[in-house]
Amino acid sequence: MEISKNQFVADLIAFDRNGGALPEQIYHAVGDAVRAGRIPPERALPSSRTLARELGVSRNTVNAAYELLRADGIISVRQGAAPRIGTGPELERGRAALRVQPPHLSTRGEHLAKQRRHRMLDVGLLEPGAPVEDLFPADEWARCLRRVARRQYGAEAMYANVTGLERLQVALAGHLERWRGVVAKPEQLLIVPSTQASLTLAGLCLADPGDTALVESPGYWGARIAFAQTQLEVRALEVDADGADPDSAGDVNARLIYVTPSHQFPTGTRMPLTRRMALLERARTSGAVILEDDYDSAFLWRGRTIAAMQGISAGAEVIYLGTASKSLLPGLRLAYMVVPEPLVPAFSQVQRDMGLRVNIHAQAALAEFIESGALTTHLRRITRIYEARGRLLIDTLRTVLGDRIEADMPMGGVQTVISFRGPVDDEAVSQRMQATGFNTPALSGYCIGKPRSGLIVGFAEATPDIAQRFARTLSTAF
Amino acid sequence: MEISKNQFVADLIAFDRNGGALPEQIYHAVGDAVRAGRIPPERALPSSRTLARELGVSRNTVNAAYELLRADGIISVRQGAAPRIGTGPELERGRAALRVQPPHLSTRGEHLAKQRRHRMLDVGLLEPGAPVEDLFPADEWARCLRRVARRQYGAEAMYANVTGLERLQVALAGHLERWRGVVAKPEQLLIVPSTQASLTLAGLCLADPGDTALVESPGYWGARIAFAQTQLEVRALEVDADGADPDSAGDVNARLIYVTPSHQFPTGTRMPLTRRMALLERARTSGAVILEDDYDSAFLWRGRTIAAMQGISAGAEVIYLGTASKSLLPGLRLAYMVVPEPLVPAFSQVQRDMGLRVNIHAQAALAEFIESGALTTHLRRITRIYEARGRLLIDTLRTVLGDRIEADMPMGGVQTVISFRGPVDDEAVSQRMQATGFNTPALSGYCIGKPRSGLIVGFAEATPDIAQRFARTLSTAF
Repeated sequence: MEISKNQFVADLIAFDRNGGALPEQIYHAVGDAVRAGRIPPERALPSSRTLARELGVSRNTVNAAYELLRADGIISVRQGAAPRIGTGPELERGRAALRVQPPHLSTRGEHLAKQRRHRMLDVGLLEPGAPVEDLFPADEWARCLRRVARRQYGAEAMYANVTGLERLQVALAGHLERWRGVVAKPEQLLIVPSTQASLTLAGLCLADPGDTALVESPGYWGARIAFAQTQLEVRALEVDADGADPDSAGDVNARLIYVTPSHQFPTGTRMPLTRRMALLERARTSGAVILEDDYDSAFLWRGRTIAAMQGISAGAEVIYLGTASKSLLPGLRLAYMVVPEPLVPAFSQVQRDMGLRVNIHAQAALAEFIESGALTTHLRRITRIYEARGRLLIDTLRTVLGDRIEADMPMGGVQTVISFRGPVDDEAVSQRMQATGFNTPALSGYCIGKPRSGLIVGFAEATPDIAQRFARTLSTAF
Repeated sequence: MEISKNQFVADLIAFDRNGGALPEQIYHAVGDAVRAGRIPPERALPSSRTLARELGVSRNTVNAAYELLRADGIISVRQGAAPRIGTGPELERGRAALRVQPPHLSTRGEHLAKQRRHRMLDVGLLEPGAPVEDLFPADEWARCLRRVARRQYGAEAMYANVTGLERLQVALAGHLERWRGVVAKPEQLLIVPSTQASLTLAGLCLADPGDTALVESPGYWGARIAFAQTQLEVRALEVDADGADPDSAGDVNARLIYVTPSHQFPTGTRMPLTRRMALLERARTSGAVILEDDYDSAFLWRGRTIAAMQGISAGAEVIYLGTASKSLLPGLRLAYMVVPEPLVPAFSQVQRDMGLRVNIHAQAALAEFIESGALTTHLRRITRIYEARGRLLIDTLRTVLGDRIEADMPMGGVQTVISFRGPVDDEAVSQRMQATGFNTPALSGYCIGKPRSGLIVGFAEATPDIAQRFARTLSTAF
C-alpha cells in the first residue's frame, strides 16, 4: 500500500484514538512531534480535507485541531495554501535538544574504513586489470540471460543454493580441469561475487587475528587489504624475474600464502616449476595454505601456459581462485574458489552467513557460455585483440621513449609494467599521468617489501590513438 | 590455451632442459614426481608420440625415458595401451610420506563454522519466509534482463560501481519514499547480495567484539547469526502482541537493535507508533543504531501499513533494510540498506573490500521494474494471491484442528505462527512435520529469551490440496 506524502501525520495520530476529544488528540500528537523535532520546520501538512479522509473523521474535527495548533504558533495557516509547521524560537529549542549525533563507527569500523588505498581516479584510461566493455559479448550474454531467466530453478532459486548453482559448479569444474589442470569435484567450487570475497573467506576461516599472510611484492593490493581487514599481519614475498621467491620470506610461519603463479600481478612473470614445487613443499611442511589467484590465465598468448598449482598439489594445500571480471566483465560480480574438500562445510557456512552469494541468472548464463563453447570462442577473440594491443602499446612506447624506459612484451593479460632507466619518482610520474586522465598507478605503491619503481599500465584500451597519446604524455612526465 | 590431459607430464619436464641427456631428464622428472606422489598410481601417461610432440623432442628420446622408468618399476608398459604409473610398494612409501593433512580451520574459523542452526530440511513444503517461484514474473524479468544486458554501463560495469548501480539507487530511493516513507538520497542506498550482508556490514562497522546487539525474540535467526559471526553478544528484545517491547531489555547498553516493526518476523504483529517512538528515543539517548528490517512490507493487506521508522527518525539513528528475496526471488541475490549519510564512506569501503556486491544486470533489471511500474503490478498480484492462500490455510487449520490450535488470520507476508492450546513440545511436532516433508520449524527455536511454543508456517504454497494435507498431518503430529 502506498504511503501518502503526509501519512506520517495520519500515522502519528491513528494509533491513539481511545481517549479524549479527537481535535485535542490531533493537537497533542502533532504538537508533541513538532516540539520533539520529528516534523521539520516549514514542512507542509495535509489539507484538512485530506487528513480528515485519511483519519476517517470529519473535516471540522481537523479544522478545530489545526486552529489549536495555529494558536500555539506550531503551525501557520494562510488562506489558499497548505498549513505549514512554524519556525518560532520555542520550537527551535525543542529541536536543538533532539539534534541527533550521527552514529559513530566502532573501533573496528574505524580500522576497517581506514585501510590505505592508492590514489587512483574513479575513471581513467589504461587502468591495469580492467578489460574493455566493448569486447564483452553483450548480445550473446543478453540472449543467454533471457533464456536462463525463463527457467525454473526449484530449491536453487530459494535459500538452499548456498555455494553456487550446481549446473555452474559442474561446468566450471570441467572447464578448469580442461584448461587449467585443476582437479576438483563440482561441490568444491564456491561461487562468490568477487575475489575479495574469496580472500575474505580464506582469511576468516583459516587464520586468526595476528597470524601472518605472505603476499607478493609487488602484488595485488586487494589481497593485502582483504588480509588486513581480517586482522592478519601481511609480510612480503619478494617477486623477481621468476615470480614470487619462496625463500624471500625467511622462516616466517605464515598461515596463508597469496601468489599469482601463471601470470604474476602486476609484473607479468611466470613461476617456474621448481619454484612452484618449492612453494608447495613449504606449504606442506608449515601447514600453510596457498591462495593461487589465477585471475587472467584464460588469455595468455606467449609460451606454454603452465598448469594450475592446484592440480599438481596433493589436493589439500592450495585454494584456487578465479574470476569472470577479467575475461568477461567486472560488473557481472562472478568469481569462484576451489576449496579442499574437508573445508567446504565451514567455508560455505560463512559464505551464507555473510551473504557472499551470486545472482542465479548470472550463474546460469556463465554455465551456458561454458557448455556451448561461447566462452572459448570469446576467450580466443579477446586474446588476439589484447595481444595486438599489448604489442602496439610497447612498440609505441619504445619508439617514442627509446631507452628511457624498459618494457617487455607482455605474455598475456591486460596490464604490464614499465620501468624507468635511472632513478625516477614513480609516484610523481603516476600523479602527472592521472592529471591527464591516465589511470596508471606507481609500481612502488604495490610493494610492501623492497620498493620498486615503475608504472603499471593496462593495455586493453590501447588503440593506436590512445597508445600514442599515452607515450607522448609519458615522455613529458619524467 | 587448453591444458592437455597430460600436460602435467610435459610441464614437469619442460622447464629444466639445460643440462643432461634428454631421456635422463625425463626419467628423473617423472620419477621424482611419482615418488613424491604428485602423479597418482595407475594414471595413464601420454603416448610416446604425444609427449614427444608436446616436448618438441624425437619419439626415440621419450621411448628411451619410458624404458628407464619401466626398468625401475615406476611405470608399466603394455603393448597397445598407454603407459601407466605403477603401484609397487616402493612407490607407496614415497606417497605415504607426502600424504598431506587437510588444512585446519583457525580458531576463528571453527567458531564461525559452529554457529547453531535449526534443523531444517534443504527442501520442504510451507517453509516460512519463502515466496513461490511460480509467481516470479520470469518472462517479464527475462525480457528486461535481455534489454539491460545489451547496454553499456561505462565505469559502472568496471570497478568504480561500489555501492550499487546509480540508476537503481535513484529508482529505489523514490520507490521507498513513496511506498514506505523512507527519506534518503540515492547515494545512501547500498545494494548488497542479501540481508545477511547488510547485517554483517552493520555489525562490523558499528560494533566492536563483545558489544551487545538486541534482537527480537522470537525473531529472525539470520540476525542472531550475523551478530554472533561479528562477535557481538546477542540479547533478547521480547516480542508481544505489539511487536518488540523496548523496555524488555532493561538498561542493557546495546550498540545495535534489530527489529521488524511493520510486520514482526515470525509472529506477524505490527509495532504501534508509541513503541516505535520509544524505541527511537532509546536509540537516541543511548547512541544505539536501529536496524529496521522491512523484509516483506511490500505485501501486507490488512489494516493500514505503517510508515518506515527510518522516515520518522531524525535520520541518523536508523538503518533501513530491504530485500527482493520475498517480493521477487531469493535467487536474485538483491537486497539493500539505507545508511545514514555520514556512515556511507565507511560502509561502502567495507562492502568493497569484502566483495559484498551485486550483478549489474540484476540491478538494472530491478531499476526497470520499478520505473516501468511492473514491480507495483507484480506486488498487487502476489498480495492478492498470498492473502487468499493465507486465509485458506488458516480456515483449513481451524476446520480440521478446531480449538486445538490458535491461529490468527495473517495481515501479510508469507508466513504465520500457529500456537497450540496447552503444553506441546513444538520441536517434536516440527520434527514430525519435517519427516513428512513440511519445512515448518518450531517457534521455540526462534526464541533467545522466554521460550514460546508454536509452529512457523509459510503459506505462499498453500493451495487447497497442500493446506488439507498439512492440516491432516498436523492433527496427528501432537
